[in-house]
Amino acid sequence: MTATPPRIGALPSGPHDAITDVAGVTVGHCTLDEGAVQTGVTVLRPHAGDPYLQRVPAGVAVLNGFGKSIGLLQVEELGLLETPIALTNTFSVPAVAQAQISACIAANPECGRSLPSVNPLVFECNDGFLNDMQRMAVGQQHYLGALAAAAGEAVEQGSVGAGRGMSCFGLKGGIGSASRRVPAPGNNSGAAHTVGALVLANYGLQSNLILAGRPVGARLAAQRAEAKPAAEPEKGSIIMLIATDAPLDARQLRRLALRAGAGLARTGSVFGHGSGDIALAFSTAYTVPQLRDAPMPAPTLLHDALLDGLFQAAADSVEQAILHALWRAQAVTGRDGHVRPALRDLLDSVDAFANS
Amino acid sequence: MTATPPRIGALPSGPHDAITDVAGVTVGHCTLDEGAVQTGVTVLRPHAGDPYLQRVPAGVAVLNGFGKSIGLLQVEELGLLETPIALTNTFSVPAVAQAQISACIAANPECGRSLPSVNPLVFECNDGFLNDMQRMAVGQQHYLGALAAAAGEAVEQGSVGAGRGMSCFGLKGGIGSASRRVPAPGNNSGAAHTVGALVLANYGLQSNLILAGRPVGARLAAQRAEAKPAAEPEKGSIIMLIATDAPLDARQLRRLALRAGAGLARTGSVFGHGSGDIALAFSTAYTVPQLRDAPMPAPTLLHDALLDGLFQAAADSVEQAILHALWRAQAVTGRDGHVRPALRDLLDSVDAFANS
Amino acid sequence: MTATPPRIGALPSGPHDAITDVAGVTVGHCTLDEGAVQTGVTVLRPHAGDPYLQRVPAGVAVLNGFGKSIGLLQVEELGLLETPIALTNTFSVPAVAQAQISACIAANPECGRSLPSVNPLVFECNDGFLNDMQRMAVGQQHYLGALAAAAGEAVEQGSVGAGRGMSCFGLKGGIGSASRRVPAPGNNSGAAHTVGALVLANYGLQSNLILAGRPVGARLAAQRAEAKPAAEPEKGSIIMLIATDAPLDARQLRRLALRAGAGLARTGSVFGHGSGDIALAFSTAYTVPQLRDAPMPAPTLLHDALLDGLFQAAADSVEQAILHALWRAQAVTGRDGHVRPALRDLLDSVDAFANS
Amino acid sequence: MTATPPRIGALPSGPHDAITDVAGVTVGHCTLDEGAVQTGVTVLRPHAGDPYLQRVPAGVAVLNGFGKSIGLLQVEELGLLETPIALTNTFSVPAVAQAQISACIAANPECGRSLPSVNPLVFECNDGFLNDMQRMAVGQQHYLGALAAAAGEAVEQGSVGAGRGMSCFGLKGGIGSASRRVPAPGNNSGAAHTVGALVLANYGLQSNLILAGRPVGARLAAQRAEAKPAAEPEKGSIIMLIATDAPLDARQLRRLALRAGAGLARTGSVFGHGSGDIALAFSTAYTVPQLRDAPMPAPTLLHDALLDGLFQAAADSVEQAILHALWRAQAVTGRDGHVRPALRDLLDSVDAFANS
Repeated sequence: MTATPPRIGALPSGPHDAITDVAGVTVGHCTLDEGAVQTGVTVLRPHAGDPYLQRVPAGVAVLNGFGKSIGLLQVEELGLLETPIALTNTFSVPAVAQAQISACIAANPECGRSLPSVNPLVFECNDGFLNDMQRMAVGQQHYLGALAAAAGEAVEQGSVGAGRGMSCFGLKGGIGSASRRVPAPGNNSGAAHTVGALVLANYGLQSNLILAGRPVGARLAAQRAEAKPAAEPEKGSIIMLIATDAPLDARQLRRLALRAGAGLARTGSVFGHGSGDIALAFSTAYTVPQLRDAPMPAPTLLHDALLDGLFQAAADSVEQAILHALWRAQAVTGRDGHVRPALRDLLDSVDAFANS
Repeated sequence: MTATPPRIGALPSGPHDAITDVAGVTVGHCTLDEGAVQTGVTVLRPHAGDPYLQRVPAGVAVLNGFGKSIGLLQVEELGLLETPIALTNTFSVPAVAQAQISACIAANPECGRSLPSVNPLVFECNDGFLNDMQRMAVGQQHYLGALAAAAGEAVEQGSVGAGRGMSCFGLKGGIGSASRRVPAPGNNSGAAHTVGALVLANYGLQSNLILAGRPVGARLAAQRAEAKPAAEPEKGSIIMLIATDAPLDARQLRRLALRAGAGLARTGSVFGHGSGDIALAFSTAYTVPQLRDAPMPAPTLLHDALLDGLFQAAADSVEQAILHALWRAQAVTGRDGHVRPALRDLLDSVDAFANS
Repeated sequence: MTATPPRIGALPSGPHDAITDVAGVTVGHCTLDEGAVQTGVTVLRPHAGDPYLQRVPAGVAVLNGFGKSIGLLQVEELGLLETPIALTNTFSVPAVAQAQISACIAANPECGRSLPSVNPLVFECNDGFLNDMQRMAVGQQHYLGALAAAAGEAVEQGSVGAGRGMSCFGLKGGIGSASRRVPAPGNNSGAAHTVGALVLANYGLQSNLILAGRPVGARLAAQRAEAKPAAEPEKGSIIMLIATDAPLDARQLRRLALRAGAGLARTGSVFGHGSGDIALAFSTAYTVPQLRDAPMPAPTLLHDALLDGLFQAAADSVEQAILHALWRAQAVTGRDGHVRPALRDLLDSVDAFANS
Repeated sequence: MTATPPRIGALPSGPHDAITDVAGVTVGHCTLDEGAVQTGVTVLRPHAGDPYLQRVPAGVAVLNGFGKSIGLLQVEELGLLETPIALTNTFSVPAVAQAQISACIAANPECGRSLPSVNPLVFECNDGFLNDMQRMAVGQQHYLGALAAAAGEAVEQGSVGAGRGMSCFGLKGGIGSASRRVPAPGNNSGAAHTVGALVLANYGLQSNLILAGRPVGARLAAQRAEAKPAAEPEKGSIIMLIATDAPLDARQLRRLALRAGAGLARTGSVFGHGSGDIALAFSTAYTVPQLRDAPMPAPTLLHDALLDGLFQAAADSVEQAILHALWRAQAVTGRDGHVRPALRDLLDSVDAFANS
């Protein structure tokens, strides 16, 4: 077995090969690991300030809208997000959304009074195979815990936070992250841009898994006749968050978000009916004030004809982040003794990276 | 003052001039009226069964996506709703969504286990002028109360349920409903169809109000110089639910929902920036099973070229429902002594229906 | 009969009450008036330069997509238009699109070679009642004629250009234009913004016509029992172009374009099934270069919370422009002796503006 | 070199491994091969009748809207196509659209008079590298020629029809087709469904080409240092047509169309900025009449939870069709001596299918 995960594509990574390579972005987790409760919350802060006051340009691409996220309606209308982004299990969306509202009110007592109400932004996947979602174990304190943990440049990955109970290609999935650096496009000799991805990976039929171009899933499926994963419909989902420091507006960020689908497809997904496959991209290059009398930014956006490098970086980062989620996940036993094995525990047996 | 509200358009109404004229549809309210808490929940049941098992075709038109509703993503992807529709204030969306999930699990213990997770569908308007939204006074019991009350053919309107704290054109707004009958289109001598609307009206600048074609708002504004409502930006919203017994699919229902915007515009709205103006239309003509092995329906849909009558009925029902919301609302005093007067208490003074 | 058309709303107009009040915008017509050929081309130039090289930010709102326009796909993806905007009859879209391509190549010989191909932008309505569309009488020279005529600040209106053969509410429709001035929003003491509209009006059932709030159509229909217009389904369409000098991006311009629907609804339209109701808004505040190495603009956009004045202006301009189209149209006799009377010839008889 | 093209995925093909395996679908080409004119027209007939009278349910997925197609607006609104589908080069869209209109009028003399105008549906890619698009060499006769040739079950592929001048990954691209059979989903022991794809492939940077999972592009690029394809931005496009005999409505067909993106991504595309990547899916299971008094169909649609097999088939068919386009294309020399080599002429040199 290789000691390090395979690399996707030709672009270089940032120093942590994680979404935190986009300066200012931080990620925190709160993990619940108690018997049939195998779940959690992950929070991404787009910058160190309060996004309610300093809103962040964002765009959304819905590849498959079988999902219960909250907050996308307003992001699509205004092209802005105004809370930290939260990830959790399907049935915990309301609890986390309420925690976001409460946190915003605590920081901005006029929110919902003289100031506009806040738009919670919570994504979800269904971790019901390992986690007893019906217990609705996630509460306000877990959101606050993950929010407080969102500091530093490292991103813990695998079976942590919202990824604790997630499954991916019949294996243990969860949180993965990656980044890519894009040379300054055109003739500009100047600064490069960074694109980072964070995924909550909880999708896929095992026989379909492609790992860095290799049909690993088919080999696993051939070996483990008992698994019969193909008979089980996809009930998963994947949330793909993309950050960049390139100056893009909401329209361009929607275009960038859509390219997450290319990275996802290269892992073997066909955006299954039951899989809520949603991507959101945001830029850290500027913010837009909540207060209408505050000065507005005047960013010099990238010309759309210079986006191809960022598109490639988005696709590669997402594929790499999914690979990281699988690679770094540890086996978890949850509800009713259900088990999801770790990819790395199985790879040797199938000689995954042997030539076919 | 006229004793009965003016009528909109030339089409006849059903027996109750309410959305419940679409057979099977019922509406219930739970109203919270305690000092600074002036809010509530309204629930619409599309049929007497469990919509999680017998899903209802639906389409959505977002006129202005400045809103915090939950559930639209999946309705747009699958063209189905699978819970009763709930209306409440902005900060209570999470509590009501959680109540919907719990109610679905109680009725379907395999929901989120062997069966798919349920998609809560909760719409909201911001009633913060009259109601102290920050108290988050709405809980699971209020959803259940409104759900239990959804029976019978009458629809209580005005300052009730989710409409308790809502404002409209600087007046007391809230819940309104209406219906229209459409002759069988084309050469069919057969059955007519019914279209019904239920609105949660919480939008508009007073000077813009047009009441059944009359510029009542301008007259009110002229008279009450102290009100200066035009200086206040719209922070409201309107939710417009449309039911029909005509056999339409999700694509056609989105088209029908969009025509709610025509009725809304005729009251003086220009879909203000801060007003989440959202319409959802559903058909009661058939249902789609949750279980994939259950038999599928085979409805004979209406030809799109026969939709104009339904479009007119949708626009007229929505305009009439808004008028009913204003007409039937009673003045409410709420948070910090804020008051919204009732339209009918003001109409005499401006001789609203005098010829101009 | 009133000598001047009624005014819509409270906002002031620019000096010409036309879309050309937005500085730089010009409009030209080429009219074909030969027996059964009653049609033409109208061209709007967003600025005096070549929009292929200096592209114009734009957004589109499709209220009803029953239409055969060309060019919207790319406008929606890139948020830019890159040709003059052309209007014509349905079957002449190809000829005009081809003329746009040829004109762009003539000015930019590398178009489609080393430079990107150009995106023609042609809107249409069906003028088949008066015009024998099957003759496809419009050719390249008519596009070039209208383009050359697009100069000066006046906008000829009524039965001219693409409006020559159009019908509206069973009357003679066609080209109309209007403008509104919006005070600088917020506390800015500075410059106001201008919003202008140009419509190609070819929709509506006569009995539904509302003229400046008056149910004129119902009165006309009552008087002219022989007309029976209500039995005829809408086969029309309306194209609504909105210009502004306010600095908005494509996302905001889509929001602005949607408000055209409010103005349209106030005239009695419910966006009928067969009516392609499409709005496009563009800003003249900045341009985006075609060449990717050219310097990009850095506009300070308006805060979305300051858009309400522009929304009102867009709705009012569109309603006023429709009124102008009807008011300024002259009766036309066309194909098979079909006649559309002019509104002004009928108004006296119904005492349209009498109090009801 | 392998004699037969590699196979994609595990699903079986229909007898011709072409879109014509969906019963009733036929494809014809008209090829222009004269020096600098290397272009053509391809026509797909969804059934043997007149689609204007018997319209076909269809859905569209725009992966990247940098394109100049005509007709999508109405397909998205009504969920129907009503002409044969035509493919050609970018600057020939108007000529082919006009030919479609003329052909429809010839067959239906009341089209645009007492009957609705017809909605032309023409897709395009930019073949300007090999073809002198500025000559606009395609005329009505070429559309009619391709239409007449649309008969029989075979589909000529490669450098034919609209594919004559197309480039793909710096190689000769063009027309490709494939099909997959899907076992009856669920417990139905009954009939399987067929999914077929036809692509017009004209996209991609050579270094990105992945051929049946192998990084062939990287090997080609490494070998041919002079090619430097990565420096050239994508100016191409791909049109992906998907046919199925499964009973789906327009909403479901949009979902199916989107899965074309998964097949496309697996070939190395990230949906480049300049590549108009558009998919359209249609069903042959039923038709919808143009005449509103004609009887409407009442299809029993597939449950959405049974779509995964069709989704896989769509992705696999598209990837296979792209592979066929490359595999079957012959080298073409066109404008200014530009040459695109055939993939098969290069494969031996790089030992493409050797193990890496």
